[in-house]
Amino acid sequence: MNTLLNAVKWDEHGLVCAVVQDRHTLRVLMVAWMNAQALHQTVTTGFAHYYSRSRQQQWMKGEQSGHKQKVYELRLDCDGDAVVLLVEQCGGIACHTGHASCFFRLYQNGSWQSVEPVIKAENEIYIRFAQEQTHDD
Amino acid sequence: MNTLLNAVKWDEHGLVCAVVQDRHTLRVLMVAWMNAQALHQTVTTGFAHYYSRSRQQQWMKGEQSGHKQKVYELRLDCDGDAVVLLVEQCGGIACHTGHASCFFRLYQNGSWQSVEPVIKAENEIYIRFAQEQTHDD
Repeated sequence: MNTLLNAVKWDEHGLVCAVVQDRHTLRVLMVAWMNAQALHQTVTTGFAHYYSRSRQQQWMKGEQSGHKQKVYELRLDCDGDAVVLLVEQCGGIACHTGHASCFFRLYQNGSWQSVEPVIKAENEIYIRFAQEQTHDD
Repeated sequence: MNTLLNAVKWDEHGLVCAVVQDRHTLRVLMVAWMNAQALHQTVTTGFAHYYSRSRQQQWMKGEQSGHKQKVYELRLDCDGDAVVLLVEQCGGIACHTGHASCFFRLYQNGSWQSVEPVIKAENEIYIRFAQEQTHDD
């Protein structure tokens, strides 16, 4: 795994930025952070793992909510400080708010507007997502 | 512009993570950082501006190289610490290495492999890109 990890330019906190795209639509679903362990676990298990900056620990996406991300492709950028994952998003929901993508706010006519439906109400998934805290990642 | 800027959760350095997608292919072209001024300039000019952490100053993408990014859509994520831009990539090259995208390295068979062609050799665009230093952003 040294080959995997050594090419990454970890930031001062030992993290790398991870951009997550839906492998079918290429929609950007979320942006999160990985430490070396999370990247290693992602590659060895085939499911996306991240590092929670607020909880200061590694977590597997969907561990509590069931909204796992099966990884089909992993790319690294030119200077090694960002990766892109192509994933199959289980349940079709990446965001803790119940939206398909975390990027449901569009800037138009001078303000940020929520332009996409909530697929599952946040209070319905809250108990599971409360542990996951994707909004902090 | 307060509406634009106040919704963003700026990090401890006053920056927000910017993911840049090609508006035609939805390819992720690069990941960069914006301060408030860069985000403001992006919206007012319609062209992507970023903040160089190495040079500690704002810059317009393509200012030196000509590889500007005309912005067609701007989105903010649920917790406000990342934006996604849909852009028209002038010249079809986003990366200082001369690749279409900064994410030209794929992890496969246990190593990172460059799987995409260089559209324009780096030394041909070096003089212009030397000022731009996209690899530091």
